[in-house]
Amino acid sequence: MSNLPTKQSQQALDTLDLRVDGQRLWDALMNLAEIGATPKGGNCRLALTEEDRAGRELVTGWLKDAGLSLRVDEIGNIFARRAGRNHDLPPVATGSHIDTQPTGGKFDGCFGVLAGLEVMRVLDERGIETEAPLEVVIWTNEEGSRFVPVMMGSGVHAGLITLKNALAATDRDGDSVAASLQRTGYAGDVPVGSHDFGAYFEAHIEQGPVLEQEATTIGAVTGSLGLHWFDVVISGQEAHAGPTPMAYRRDALKTACALVGDILTLADDYQPNGRVTCGEFTVHPNSRNVIPGQVRFSVDLRHLEPAVLAEMHDKLKALCLKHHASGKVEVELIEVQHIPPTPFAPELIEMVRRASRHLGLSFRDMETGAGHDAVQIAGINPVAMIFVPCEDGISHNEAENAEPADLEAGANVLLLAMLERAGVVSHSQEIDQ
Amino acid sequence: MSNLPTKQSQQALDTLDLRVDGQRLWDALMNLAEIGATPKGGNCRLALTEEDRAGRELVTGWLKDAGLSLRVDEIGNIFARRAGRNHDLPPVATGSHIDTQPTGGKFDGCFGVLAGLEVMRVLDERGIETEAPLEVVIWTNEEGSRFVPVMMGSGVHAGLITLKNALAATDRDGDSVAASLQRTGYAGDVPVGSHDFGAYFEAHIEQGPVLEQEATTIGAVTGSLGLHWFDVVISGQEAHAGPTPMAYRRDALKTACALVGDILTLADDYQPNGRVTCGEFTVHPNSRNVIPGQVRFSVDLRHLEPAVLAEMHDKLKALCLKHHASGKVEVELIEVQHIPPTPFAPELIEMVRRASRHLGLSFRDMETGAGHDAVQIAGINPVAMIFVPCEDGISHNEAENAEPADLEAGANVLLLAMLERAGVVSHSQEIDQ
Repeated sequence: MSNLPTKQSQQALDTLDLRVDGQRLWDALMNLAEIGATPKGGNCRLALTEEDRAGRELVTGWLKDAGLSLRVDEIGNIFARRAGRNHDLPPVATGSHIDTQPTGGKFDGCFGVLAGLEVMRVLDERGIETEAPLEVVIWTNEEGSRFVPVMMGSGVHAGLITLKNALAATDRDGDSVAASLQRTGYAGDVPVGSHDFGAYFEAHIEQGPVLEQEATTIGAVTGSLGLHWFDVVISGQEAHAGPTPMAYRRDALKTACALVGDILTLADDYQPNGRVTCGEFTVHPNSRNVIPGQVRFSVDLRHLEPAVLAEMHDKLKALCLKHHASGKVEVELIEVQHIPPTPFAPELIEMVRRASRHLGLSFRDMETGAGHDAVQIAGINPVAMIFVPCEDGISHNEAENAEPADLEAGANVLLLAMLERAGVVSHSQEIDQ
Repeated sequence: MSNLPTKQSQQALDTLDLRVDGQRLWDALMNLAEIGATPKGGNCRLALTEEDRAGRELVTGWLKDAGLSLRVDEIGNIFARRAGRNHDLPPVATGSHIDTQPTGGKFDGCFGVLAGLEVMRVLDERGIETEAPLEVVIWTNEEGSRFVPVMMGSGVHAGLITLKNALAATDRDGDSVAASLQRTGYAGDVPVGSHDFGAYFEAHIEQGPVLEQEATTIGAVTGSLGLHWFDVVISGQEAHAGPTPMAYRRDALKTACALVGDILTLADDYQPNGRVTCGEFTVHPNSRNVIPGQVRFSVDLRHLEPAVLAEMHDKLKALCLKHHASGKVEVELIEVQHIPPTPFAPELIEMVRRASRHLGLSFRDMETGAGHDAVQIAGINPVAMIFVPCEDGISHNEAENAEPADLEAGANVLLLAMLERAGVVSHSQEIDQ
């Protein structure tokens, strides 16, 4: 690898005193947010709709203006490349997505893409040349709101989803991904998965409350939590609330509530990374004067370590068995999905920490509990993520908000980490001066 | 009151050795069940539909054949009268309904009406004259499945629902009770509520498990449980299951489950009559990977004594306050409906017990937790009910079932109780022999 060694690189960057333009980054976010703006201040740019097309046109225009060359692959992923001195090196990439939830916010995804744009604008202005090429990537359909599966573009790129299946996915009106790509002009000809990244950094709002609550600016993301999804079905006997004395009841809700109470303590022994959530909960027949005959609820277990996740699963099974054996009802545990924990690349994580330290920013290691394009890429190339705080931890919501200073800080960390990884060769301003 | 004193009446009945024809009662039930029969062996005769009209035609034909004269009131209630010696006495009535739930059974309601028919058939055969007139009543729209409110005909008769409101009620297709009465030919001209009953007995399947579980044939119903309905709303903060550590969560489901667990113990101190049910339970946004932000569930408290019901209400309030004060979420208690307990007439209840004893049947006092036409009538006239077991306590279900022997026993109790109350004047068979 022909990058500069770390120490030299940092010294080189010190000399440059290179920083992004926070106001320009903010303005780009606000301009993009005008496309598909919702009355409550959020965004609706569902993947491969007319709004998404308009968003792509706006951002790719900016990328071209910053001197990047664009390629589009068969699933509509956009790769905007800035040449490096060594064309043979795999690019140091960054990116995210600009599609949104139906009532999404202005920052989820967009921050990652526009932070990448801002990095490119700074480098362009300052005439900086890097050893490795750089890339800004816009992944197709990260949100999965219009077409499932989610994280489609990065998943196809990483070989986790076949191109055929992705193109065949349809929305509620029967419109397919293939047809939508044609219509929006983003059915590219670059074969999917045709190139590797030397590194992939993704900047993103945290979508959780930790950084804000702890007054910390940067999260150096060490990996994504594994998750194990289940359904629990509890079957009793529905009966009239009036004529059925307590002693004769086989109340599915009674057992369900006791079991949920037990299940929600499953993460207690594995803090701070253990998570357990019961998010779906449906009661049958769900009538005011009928004792519930059946309850079905979901269990979502998450942890960073596979062994701990397996231990939580064992405890979940034991709890279900206990309630099955002790009660008048039947308890069934059904496995729904299992995604193992995904560690990120230690050397890239260290670059994020180092850039934060260099910039005098407060930072901490953390994991991502949410899925991101970076998690898909982590299976094939070295990856790190840079989190910044968001207001009240709220995301996937029109009320999503973030502080301009935090976004600027995150973009500066991205800038320095990418430059360290790609290696700075020359900078015209210093040469000129 | 010109009835025979009790002892004399029982002796008179002993001499008669009068019993219903159990097979004929069963055959009538099965014949009626052919109208609106469902594939799973149940019945669908929604109020004032073509099926209900056909059922009414069948049963009123039988009533006329047994010598009764029919009158129909303005809400379609059918009063079939058997003259007594003293026309000035208010009739001793019985009855129930023959409309069903959409997936109802063959016995709920129908048993009460056809047990009344069977009593009339026996008296007709044996030429028995009573002091007071007798009546069999078919109440309109007891189930409330097509038109709300439920127990409409008896409610209008008892002055609890205005005729105007009842006639204006519409089904999902906008069809009104008034139009349906006209179409089916049951828009009668007898003013509603125009006559009182000297007594009203209603035979019914228990719709609960007690008699079957205790191997008891007859329930002498002493009254209906009062009920107090509430909604509980728990408001936390919805958040992503992945990025939100346990310590930062305001999980509405967690508190809801703990609170439901507490609430379901509320009846423990008031057994066997205290009942508490949480039947409706909805979670928002009800998504697998979102921590629930809001839960709304119903609470149904029931007891026979107003003071106990009030005490249960106080304890419910205290529990909600406790969880509101202790947690990270808000708990709100909303009152929905309050129906006070309704005691039945002690002298009629005693007649049910006496008839059971006389017939050598096992019996016990019990309350009704479900609503019945009898409960509506209890506000204006003396009322008692006769319960018989039903299989597994299941009702409002196509699987509803009952033993022919139990139905026969219930009809015999109805026969003897009505005769005791009405007073037997003469019987042609003994005269003839």
